[in-house]
Amino acid sequence: MEKKIEQLKVILAEISDLSYAAALLGWDQQTYMPTGGAEGRGNQLALLGRLVHERATTPELGKLLDELKPYTAGIDPDSDDARLVKVTARSYEKAVRVPTKHVVEFAQETTLGQQAWMEARAKSDFSIFRPHLEKIVTLRQEYASFFPNFKHPYDALLDDFEPNMKTADVKAIFDGLRPKQVELIKAITDQPQVDDSFLHQPFDEKKQWDFGVEVITRFGYDWKRGREDKAPHPFTTSFGINDVRITTRVAPEFLNTMLFSTMHECGHALYGMGVAPELERTGLEGGASLAVHESQSRMWENLVGRSFPFWQYFYPRLQETFPQLAGVPLEKFYKGINKVKPSLIRVEADEATYNLHIMLRLEMEIALLEGKVAAKDMPDLWNAKMQDYLGVTPPNDAQGVLQDIHWSGGLIGYFSTYALGNLISVQLWEKINQDIPDLVEQIRQGKFETLLGWLREKIHRHGGKFEPQELVQKVTGSKIDPAPYVRYLTKKYSEIYNL
Amino acid sequence: MEKKIEQLKVILAEISDLSYAAALLGWDQQTYMPTGGAEGRGNQLALLGRLVHERATTPELGKLLDELKPYTAGIDPDSDDARLVKVTARSYEKAVRVPTKHVVEFAQETTLGQQAWMEARAKSDFSIFRPHLEKIVTLRQEYASFFPNFKHPYDALLDDFEPNMKTADVKAIFDGLRPKQVELIKAITDQPQVDDSFLHQPFDEKKQWDFGVEVITRFGYDWKRGREDKAPHPFTTSFGINDVRITTRVAPEFLNTMLFSTMHECGHALYGMGVAPELERTGLEGGASLAVHESQSRMWENLVGRSFPFWQYFYPRLQETFPQLAGVPLEKFYKGINKVKPSLIRVEADEATYNLHIMLRLEMEIALLEGKVAAKDMPDLWNAKMQDYLGVTPPNDAQGVLQDIHWSGGLIGYFSTYALGNLISVQLWEKINQDIPDLVEQIRQGKFETLLGWLREKIHRHGGKFEPQELVQKVTGSKIDPAPYVRYLTKKYSEIYNL
Repeated sequence: MEKKIEQLKVILAEISDLSYAAALLGWDQQTYMPTGGAEGRGNQLALLGRLVHERATTPELGKLLDELKPYTAGIDPDSDDARLVKVTARSYEKAVRVPTKHVVEFAQETTLGQQAWMEARAKSDFSIFRPHLEKIVTLRQEYASFFPNFKHPYDALLDDFEPNMKTADVKAIFDGLRPKQVELIKAITDQPQVDDSFLHQPFDEKKQWDFGVEVITRFGYDWKRGREDKAPHPFTTSFGINDVRITTRVAPEFLNTMLFSTMHECGHALYGMGVAPELERTGLEGGASLAVHESQSRMWENLVGRSFPFWQYFYPRLQETFPQLAGVPLEKFYKGINKVKPSLIRVEADEATYNLHIMLRLEMEIALLEGKVAAKDMPDLWNAKMQDYLGVTPPNDAQGVLQDIHWSGGLIGYFSTYALGNLISVQLWEKINQDIPDLVEQIRQGKFETLLGWLREKIHRHGGKFEPQELVQKVTGSKIDPAPYVRYLTKKYSEIYNL
Repeated sequence: MEKKIEQLKVILAEISDLSYAAALLGWDQQTYMPTGGAEGRGNQLALLGRLVHERATTPELGKLLDELKPYTAGIDPDSDDARLVKVTARSYEKAVRVPTKHVVEFAQETTLGQQAWMEARAKSDFSIFRPHLEKIVTLRQEYASFFPNFKHPYDALLDDFEPNMKTADVKAIFDGLRPKQVELIKAITDQPQVDDSFLHQPFDEKKQWDFGVEVITRFGYDWKRGREDKAPHPFTTSFGINDVRITTRVAPEFLNTMLFSTMHECGHALYGMGVAPELERTGLEGGASLAVHESQSRMWENLVGRSFPFWQYFYPRLQETFPQLAGVPLEKFYKGINKVKPSLIRVEADEATYNLHIMLRLEMEIALLEGKVAAKDMPDLWNAKMQDYLGVTPPNDAQGVLQDIHWSGGLIGYFSTYALGNLISVQLWEKINQDIPDLVEQIRQGKFETLLGWLREKIHRHGGKFEPQELVQKVTGSKIDPAPYVRYLTKKYSEIYNL
């Protein structure tokens, strides 16, 4: 069986290497590629995508997995081998149900869809994107139809991003969360608004960049195994556990953009860098799920980076870097970066309102997939829901239904992982603070080694061995639960807004 | 047959796309990759290399080519289709003779060889590299043995870089050239030396970079279809004809480094950008050969960039950029950048001595391949030949036999293309000046459109359709010939050194 495990790993390593090559092509596309390269890059990525799919569905892989199952049934179910076979079999069984024809068609339609979306957003004209959204929804419905065993068509999609998570579970979690977040936002908006005008002024871009670098170096980002570049839409990508790169953006007149996007992406990267070397090139090195990944990015961004103790350490350094903040006391700065204001754009939303943007999208995605709403009716539905949930109405579709790239790339079923990540981050945070009683004091001193060590031990090193619910349960003792998040938000904003 | 040509193009497009993906991985490796990424990158590149070799040797390709040969025999032999079948068949027939086992072993040994070479050069210790060189020579001998039809084992190697060029031809060309270059150098070194001390002083790196950008923008480098980055060893690479990137280096206290490496790489890039779009993704878009490629880089670097008229236009701009040159007259500057001095390092050699570095390497490579010299004797042989040809003896092996990366990467058979490129560049230059009588005047005005247009029409657009000798013959009316180069050098240096 030893030999068969090795044979399995050879196939998986090839899939990983092809995926990493594709990831580098994607990284380059979003950082350095000249515009002329777009068409060729599309060809190269389509080819690599097809080669990955071919290898991920080869009968040889299926045969190996079948032969290995009796062996792994007899060993520790949490061992690397047992988990490798289990997780690989899971992906294999999904992948073989999808015809290559569909994979190719989906790749082509989403390439066109993204181009159309860019134009539609630039012109704020939904009609340019509409026919593409229709096709993409049809393709996602077709994809769901390949998996008749799932109760709800949305389950098949969600499952690709959150293994074994069901739509009904997510709905139940969100149903518990929504009224409490709405109530909290109502309470906050009834209070006098905090001042954040000092965040909106010119800040030297190079100094901003360097400050971000200083912060994440302290967090433990390993520059020998990664690098940071600029990108219009920040992201993290990796080509193995020893080359995990982040991107960030710098706004010349708003400090938050660089600060929190840099910490956010660093959180993803620390996860990628912390996976056990034994899992590299097996397909298990990518992390447990998007939500678990997001729990890491949001933890470093929000629970660390938007916390008072963090700024007790870093604010004097920030003031040194930007003397224009000399007259702004720490308390005022802290309130400013945590200002709550229902707004139009998800990626700029504060912690209190963010999840509502997600819930809105989840509802719309489910309605699309069920055929209960047509693509053409999306702008109106979007605007109505924005008014309903956040009390704001987009002045145009660019700031409304066209704001996110996801649907144009076929990523229907993805958004809820952002909100789940927020919830998980706080569940973990409560546990961490029990395990490391002086964590707040360490953060106040700019020390993050213990925190990172805890995350590596409990989360990072396992990679994708465990399903997200399983991992959260294992680490915190309960499944994904909105209660800690509500407690956290309530406590934090009660102090900031004197609720 | 139309359909079979299309089938052929589908296979070739896949090979191209995989090669481009590999090229991007290589570009990243030499520009931005963090050190941690090296091992993973090796895996990814090895896999892509194997996939390319598999596709380049698939029996399906052989069958298609056989079926297409009768068709192309009946059409214009210079048509795209006829040339595509001819060139592809040529590569196919070579590739199928090489067992995949050899390809993989060669990839592994040269990866190790390059690592060992880097260490050996850093420590100036040939013994670290010696066992690797032995293995690489053995592998190159084995490679040559797959091609019993070649008269000389070196022919099989050379042929990969210069299609259809024979060792005997190169030797004959060099035999004609050597005594004349040696005589010229002797005459020069008998004269008083020119002053180039003003080139060796601090020059702001950002300003150097920007000046280089200004120059190559004027040359016609298309920034929408390329970009420039820093690399320790400048190179040009492409991922299609619409993404052709260059790299350069900037020495903080020596102006020539940035100036001439930037123009050199731009020359390669203009070739890559000028290939006819119909040839893209066919394998014919890479150019006729390394020597023809080098003729383009050397033309822009030397015949344009080291010429007096060029600096009549650009020197005032350079003086504006670097006021420390205000007191250096144009004539003195021109002589300084053209200073001839026999020296140790090939890549820093002037135009008069450069080819001797190449001849030395060619002789050593042939001796290695014929088994007439052992790897262990290379340092002594190198030093003896340096003394013989250039009158200098390296103080250590880092500045001697270990200076070039090529052999460690298995590139035996490559060096002579550099010298051939020099010769071709001047043959083309004589023809261009006949066809464009006011070319010198155009250069004096900083205008390069007519020159680039000529090169596109005569050389670039054909890509790899013609063999190098065939192309040179077609364009200049004669085969590769050292006489124009000798004429050029003699005239140029007679003026500079008052010979």
